[in-house]
Amino acid sequence: MDGASRRQLARSLSTVENRSAGWREILAKSFAADGKALIVGVTGPPGGGKSTLIDALAAHWSGLGHQVAIIAIDPASPFSGGAVLGDRVRMRRSEDLDSVFIRSMSARGHAGGLNEAAFDLCTVLGGFGVTRILLETVGVGQNEVEVAFVADCTLVLSVPGLGDSVQAAKAGLMEVGDIYVVNKGDLAGASAVARDISNMLALVFAGVPGRNVGPADTSMLAAVPGPTRQRLGERYGDPSKPGGAWHPPVLTTTATDDKAVAAVVEAIEDCAGWMDESGQRALRNLDRVGIHLRNILQQRLLERMLAGAGSRLPFDELVKAIAERRIDPYGAADRLLDDANPD
Amino acid sequence: MDGASRRQLARSLSTVENRSAGWREILAKSFAADGKALIVGVTGPPGGGKSTLIDALAAHWSGLGHQVAIIAIDPASPFSGGAVLGDRVRMRRSEDLDSVFIRSMSARGHAGGLNEAAFDLCTVLGGFGVTRILLETVGVGQNEVEVAFVADCTLVLSVPGLGDSVQAAKAGLMEVGDIYVVNKGDLAGASAVARDISNMLALVFAGVPGRNVGPADTSMLAAVPGPTRQRLGERYGDPSKPGGAWHPPVLTTTATDDKAVAAVVEAIEDCAGWMDESGQRALRNLDRVGIHLRNILQQRLLERMLAGAGSRLPFDELVKAIAERRIDPYGAADRLLDDANPD
Repeated sequence: MDGASRRQLARSLSTVENRSAGWREILAKSFAADGKALIVGVTGPPGGGKSTLIDALAAHWSGLGHQVAIIAIDPASPFSGGAVLGDRVRMRRSEDLDSVFIRSMSARGHAGGLNEAAFDLCTVLGGFGVTRILLETVGVGQNEVEVAFVADCTLVLSVPGLGDSVQAAKAGLMEVGDIYVVNKGDLAGASAVARDISNMLALVFAGVPGRNVGPADTSMLAAVPGPTRQRLGERYGDPSKPGGAWHPPVLTTTATDDKAVAAVVEAIEDCAGWMDESGQRALRNLDRVGIHLRNILQQRLLERMLAGAGSRLPFDELVKAIAERRIDPYGAADRLLDDANPD
Repeated sequence: MDGASRRQLARSLSTVENRSAGWREILAKSFAADGKALIVGVTGPPGGGKSTLIDALAAHWSGLGHQVAIIAIDPASPFSGGAVLGDRVRMRRSEDLDSVFIRSMSARGHAGGLNEAAFDLCTVLGGFGVTRILLETVGVGQNEVEVAFVADCTLVLSVPGLGDSVQAAKAGLMEVGDIYVVNKGDLAGASAVARDISNMLALVFAGVPGRNVGPADTSMLAAVPGPTRQRLGERYGDPSKPGGAWHPPVLTTTATDDKAVAAVVEAIEDCAGWMDESGQRALRNLDRVGIHLRNILQQRLLERMLAGAGSRLPFDELVKAIAERRIDPYGAADRLLDDANPD
């Protein structure tokens, strides 16, 4: 990507992110042009070395001829991320490459929500010919589980020394990881973390019909609710169907080890291949699109209701009444809906 | 709280959380009765000792005559939290006390969103006479920043050895913390973490009109955007106005040190006192209520649109069309809105 296209891309992303004039046209055009970019979510605890690994993955893909984009989701500190935190320093390998485009994006301030904003930026990147998108999220929590719905394929990073594997289970990440990476593999305890994750995966999959991936303490199986087992079965495929099932691999890396980085890239490409063959990529996309459309509609309906009714609707008055406990929030919503649509 | 009231409370909470028959009545009644429960959010990185500190705080408040509730937000692992993670073991001091009620709540599966669900549970608890609510969130991320909007007062926990202070800034937590606690204060590096946080606070407040709370490297000040400074000024008050301003204290604790725990309780009570005097509690409540009402409305409008139109609206067909890239999501939303409301 030369300087001019890079600048044009940056402008298009800003236009769409800020909903500036012309955003709908850019998005519609990109949407029609995109379709091949693989979106890889990378999540894990703070201090887990996500950025360094992402940097290495981007450089590796660039070497294979890909156009790569990195979207780092910055949870919107009052500081500009770069100035205080030196984000850029941590993308040393890839930041000067012509085929790598780096963008940070605030987790807050998107009227339509973070996922919608991330989804839109990925669409624009795909429309510009980007073929691999790395979506970095900070933290281990609900937010990350949700961002996983934007990605085609999700990498969950752990590091030794934090009780991470338990934390990952607690954060629900065992439900969304397609590939597990134990980073800082040279630290003591790395192999124990990898073993814990493998055991937990075995436990999770022991409950999934048609899957039996290893020894597990099945006495805990009762704790995995039926609907979850079904969802897991859906997410990771059916061994008896075309394309087969995916069993999330557990890899150990250090970001400076090129071979280990190549193995992670290979695992991602394998996963992408499986998703295409099994139809899983299309299924996940359908889920994602449904949620996206719902969110857009919800927002649009509220805007329309408030704008259409003008000052007739006592929204602010009702907020005050709730705060003063004269009416409860659901009662207030009833009032507004009745006023807006008296039928 | 005797066994019978405890069971009734648990039933009411489940009814509201699951939206079972009668939830609206319970909520409306609780909403009218509540009004005094102080909601304290506790957030921080995995492994930071949040649960142990919360346990100690609950026991301390119980000793002061409070009815206390703990809501632990479990990011919904496929396992039942307790079975694998042994959450209950970590509430040793308070779990057997009559005046402490412990409830875990899934971060997922709430139609109206996590914040709405947490807000509703707090309302029910307040209606049952609970006076102090501890809201524990897992992880450091966007989710936590948002949960802070449910709480009256937010405690941000750090521990030595994780580069936490930088992570806290990155996660936007420096914008929401009312009290900072460096836990595991007996570990090496605790005082350095406390110093880092104090420095960062000084830096943040150096940009706020009327506040000058300590020496700071003001060369970085340009990185704090104007609107953020204004928001911070609003959140932490104005030194020239009645009630004055709040400067978030930085405390160092170990959860087994009763004196340190008492100091944290005192800081929370001071903060609550300041919030009442300065009107900050009412302001924060107004913000929170406005967001809550918007969310309820959005959801209700979508439900009404989809239900009202019956099978007339081609929602599923449009999702498919988006997935096949025949129409972009915003165009699809236009189509649905036009069909639902042809005027």
